[in-house]
Amino acid sequence: MTNIFFKDNKVDVKGLIPGQSIDCVIIGFDQHELKILLLKWKNKELWSVPGGFIYKNDDMDSAAVRVLKNRTGLDFLFLEQFYTFGNCNRGKLEPGFWEENIPEFGSDFIDWLKQRFISTGYLSLVDIAKCNPVPDFISDVCEWISVDNLPKLIFDHDLIVKKALSHIKIQINYLPIGISLLPKKFTMKSLRNLYESILNRSLDRGNFQKKILKLKILIRHEKQLTGAANKAPYLYSFDKAKYKSLLDEGIGFIN
Amino acid sequence: MTNIFFKDNKVDVKGLIPGQSIDCVIIGFDQHELKILLLKWKNKELWSVPGGFIYKNDDMDSAAVRVLKNRTGLDFLFLEQFYTFGNCNRGKLEPGFWEENIPEFGSDFIDWLKQRFISTGYLSLVDIAKCNPVPDFISDVCEWISVDNLPKLIFDHDLIVKKALSHIKIQINYLPIGISLLPKKFTMKSLRNLYESILNRSLDRGNFQKKILKLKILIRHEKQLTGAANKAPYLYSFDKAKYKSLLDEGIGFIN
Repeated sequence: MTNIFFKDNKVDVKGLIPGQSIDCVIIGFDQHELKILLLKWKNKELWSVPGGFIYKNDDMDSAAVRVLKNRTGLDFLFLEQFYTFGNCNRGKLEPGFWEENIPEFGSDFIDWLKQRFISTGYLSLVDIAKCNPVPDFISDVCEWISVDNLPKLIFDHDLIVKKALSHIKIQINYLPIGISLLPKKFTMKSLRNLYESILNRSLDRGNFQKKILKLKILIRHEKQLTGAANKAPYLYSFDKAKYKSLLDEGIGFIN
Repeated sequence: MTNIFFKDNKVDVKGLIPGQSIDCVIIGFDQHELKILLLKWKNKELWSVPGGFIYKNDDMDSAAVRVLKNRTGLDFLFLEQFYTFGNCNRGKLEPGFWEENIPEFGSDFIDWLKQRFISTGYLSLVDIAKCNPVPDFISDVCEWISVDNLPKLIFDHDLIVKKALSHIKIQINYLPIGISLLPKKFTMKSLRNLYESILNRSLDRGNFQKKILKLKILIRHEKQLTGAANKAPYLYSFDKAKYKSLLDEGIGFIN
């Protein structure tokens, strides 16, 4: 992986804005459960969300786009910031943490990491099937972990993930939930399961179907005749233009 | 006004985190309209929202609480961040802007203002009647201006206000709108007008009343018998405990 802030095999921090970082909570939906893309540090039991820094001539949003592209291989993602973490004791670590865990990146980088960072959290919603997860230079594992089974995360990343999940729940009618997280064709059950996973409660099957059909954002596809007893459920896809036009006002069918 | 970052009548910036500021959109509701607390710079036609910087040992939220207290005199306010503004060209000014407009604060402060700032926007909802607006050291006017009649603001403050108003609209069911913005006792009409102002559309009178009464967050007060034809509308207040318990799940009566 190339990364322009490496120089002579050390991390060169001169081009970066001091004191400001970004953290990305990348969310996917797979087999009835929400998952988050996490990094495991090389040869350690340390887990974190992907993050990065901001170049002096970069917009903060561009830094988030870069991190997401590097970790997922994807260019066009739904991405928005959800919160900025600015407590002065956030990310407080045991003395010697950096020297012990990443001595190979040089003392300039380590000194730089010890400053106080204010970090802006970005949320991305992606189709897991389209992702090609790639670890960053500190980690050797980058994988999808179920939100019901998350490991303890370093720094204040537990809080960052919690805030992101609360954001998606509160903003459920204004985020492109279905269109970002589901494959192109999906069943009504998958769509309902997705909403149930986010809201963390059951939704009435009939009511859900009635409300979402009323919005006229779904296209129903004809069943393939297979000869077997035709019990396969209908597949749906989104009418993208209608979906997007509704999103501005809120896809107000969940309350 | 005392302010600990003044020293020998110059602004002392050494105690502050470089590159990071906060901006506060303080919203009130008065006579059927939403208003924002704005500052007008001394002897200039320059308007801005109140803002400030973060001390090295301060949480970012504490900096916002401090700014709000200094500008409104209020201690216990509803306050939350809504967006962090991180574009690298934000707040680009004409060369010489600072030298021309605030020469009296010294060249250290002016040099410091010229760096790139990432600014976190905070939103506050207040009862105008309880506020005692006080200008900051750069301004001589601090006053409530209707959102329908805002002057052009400096830097990217137009965008900051726009984002705050959009945030309050999207989060309408999760923000303590009524309880923060209305006086202790209010009419059903005031409450509806408040929601209409935020949503920027009319709401059906009967429907609104039916939905909000169903939530059981309102206490209706008996009319005072005045002897005159008793046509005064009922006054209501909020059942604070119920209101707050509902807020976590969303006061879901507007969609």
